Amino acid sequence: MPSTYPLAPPLNVSQWFNAPEPLTLDALRGRIIVLHAFQMLCPGCVSHGVPQAQAVHERFSEQGIVVIGLHTVFEHHEAMPPVALAAFIHEYRLSFPIGVDRPSAAQAVPHTMQAYQLRGTPSLVVIDQVGRIRLSAFGRVDDLGLGTLLGQLLADAPAFGAGRDQPLNSDIRQGTCDDHGCGHP
Amino acid sequence: MPSTYPLAPPLNVSQWFNAPEPLTLDALRGRIIVLHAFQMLCPGCVSHGVPQAQAVHERFSEQGIVVIGLHTVFEHHEAMPPVALAAFIHEYRLSFPIGVDRPSAAQAVPHTMQAYQLRGTPSLVVIDQVGRIRLSAFGRVDDLGLGTLLGQLLADAPAFGAGRDQPLNSDIRQGTCDDHGCGHP
Amino acid sequence: MPSTYPLAPPLNVSQWFNAPEPLTLDALRGRIIVLHAFQMLCPGCVSHGVPQAQAVHERFSEQGIVVIGLHTVFEHHEAMPPVALAAFIHEYRLSFPIGVDRPSAAQAVPHTMQAYQLRGTPSLVVIDQVGRIRLSAFGRVDDLGLGTLLGQLLADAPAFGAGRDQPLNSDIRQGTCDDHGCGHP
Amino acid sequence: MPSTYPLAPPLNVSQWFNAPEPLTLDALRGRIIVLHAFQMLCPGCVSHGVPQAQAVHERFSEQGIVVIGLHTVFEHHEAMPPVALAAFIHEYRLSFPIGVDRPSAAQAVPHTMQAYQLRGTPSLVVIDQVGRIRLSAFGRVDDLGLGTLLGQLLADAPAFGAGRDQPLNSDIRQGTCDDHGCGHP
Repeated sequence: MPSTYPLAPPLNVSQWFNAPEPLTLDALRGRIIVLHAFQMLCPGCVSHGVPQAQAVHERFSEQGIVVIGLHTVFEHHEAMPPVALAAFIHEYRLSFPIGVDRPSAAQAVPHTMQAYQLRGTPSLVVIDQVGRIRLSAFGRVDDLGLGTLLGQLLADAPAFGAGRDQPLNSDIRQGTCDDHGCGHP
Repeated sequence: MPSTYPLAPPLNVSQWFNAPEPLTLDALRGRIIVLHAFQMLCPGCVSHGVPQAQAVHERFSEQGIVVIGLHTVFEHHEAMPPVALAAFIHEYRLSFPIGVDRPSAAQAVPHTMQAYQLRGTPSLVVIDQVGRIRLSAFGRVDDLGLGTLLGQLLADAPAFGAGRDQPLNSDIRQGTCDDHGCGHP
Repeated sequence: MPSTYPLAPPLNVSQWFNAPEPLTLDALRGRIIVLHAFQMLCPGCVSHGVPQAQAVHERFSEQGIVVIGLHTVFEHHEAMPPVALAAFIHEYRLSFPIGVDRPSAAQAVPHTMQAYQLRGTPSLVVIDQVGRIRLSAFGRVDDLGLGTLLGQLLADAPAFGAGRDQPLNSDIRQGTCDDHGCGHP
Repeated sequence: MPSTYPLAPPLNVSQWFNAPEPLTLDALRGRIIVLHAFQMLCPGCVSHGVPQAQAVHERFSEQGIVVIGLHTVFEHHEAMPPVALAAFIHEYRLSFPIGVDRPSAAQAVPHTMQAYQLRGTPSLVVIDQVGRIRLSAFGRVDDLGLGTLLGQLLADAPAFGAGRDQPLNSDIRQGTCDDHGCGHP
């Protein structure tokens, strides 16, 4: 591994949701962190980025991966106050911790977004166990690529996918086909 | 890693497509192999499994992962002869090597499918660099999970996702939103 | 046609977007009206109802069908003020007229939503040329069913679909297949 | 209605599936006919055209619309014999009548496809109650447009969509949101 991966700057958050207390990267050292920067009125975030973050949270939280949402409002500030974000989180049933990126007095782009040099929303940042940025991507990241990176970072952890038949879709009856597959008799 | 992963049995194939010469697991030792068992008239294969195999082939062939299709006909044998498979491969523009699982004189299930104890189609089998079966799944396998396993197996290979900003969607213009995201000014 | 279709009550709207002046059903008499009731934080509205309304607007406005959005906030009122709706309309690039259903001092459900006895969002109401409610549906309405109703109401208008070959997808080259179809040589 | 709509030529079919006896347009006069021309190895047919035909069949058969599939093989003839079509119909659970377009001794394009001057597959032909071609489209036809045409042709039939509240999604509980919508308390 190259030693040139940049260190992730601290999160600068003004308010947390789904978190009993503020999260810090320092306290999470040793964990893989998936940081999802979004805006609640960004169509690509709502249709793709936010559901992907929720899926990663549901799938990998037991394996020690921490998903953190970051509401990085850089436009329409008056339309997306924290009270609106709270309703959004409720309606979309999001269960991972979400922080409000601290607004900047000097410019539209909030503080954490500046520190990470994010270009817009959605952005996905993956931070490894020693606090280095391993991916910082703007736009849509596909599940196959994201899974691969997480697998590489998890490689020291207990192996995923044991060497026995795993009936991922046990509803396919023998001798029939359905939308998922065909079972032999 | 447990030492109990079973060794992958040899492929028993009567005819190859998209392959200059027959493939054997022995000759591929040292490579990660994604074996996709399908039937051309299995709806779940056509809608999900086959496109996923093609996507893995396109994305990971440069990283040394070998995708192999296995046409495991266990029903409607007369409807899916090799000449029909050839047309299917052509129309769906599949470019990874595909073998015809050798039919059994004694039973409907062909030889390789028997040896791997596959329950139906689609099935996905992942074989690691030393020839062990790391996943054998019947039905739909999601990209996030498959990617994670591949990432774990690739972990010794050069890291995916360098530590710099990767503009995965460089078409999002600054100061606008499109279906993929919103770029800040 | 039964004479028992109820007459559509007037719209009670506090503010309009995408409209040079307030719309009234009386002024639109003679036109088919598709009224789409939604909330900007309702997931089913964002993923299905709003895009369907936009599609009907783009496709049928030249044939005299008028699509009207109605923002019927009945929960999280403080999270969806008109300034937020304005940003939503901008980000989702909606071009049909949208009215804010007038809030009620007495209850959470706004006035027009009460008058139409809508059960939630999304709701789709189709009003015929003489002001009668021909459909009032809560939840997802599929395009095939909605198209059929609009076709029945349009039946007196110039026919859609002339009796000649319409190359809806002229990009399919002869002698090839693509995702849309196969052209013969 | 213009009098210039061409009359639909007879179907020239060598074998029928899902039909107790051969269908003829003459015997179906008075009915609206949706003729879906496809090939079982045409990707756009499998992913879009065939499911649309099945959906129209399921939805409109009670209203007198007759959906007819026409297997118009013009390439890979040896890969798509009737025995393969039979398996395809079984695996995809198609329940509408499907005829095999009679192969031509002189050219690759079969007889009915020639008579209708179809350009490829999928093609959709809509024939009205008096046997005239009202739509002949090559490629993808969207549900909204197809529904509109069917609605126009059905306009004399009993009205679809009664003037009362139709709970299309009665599973949305009051006071909650799900993927389909939000019910008010």
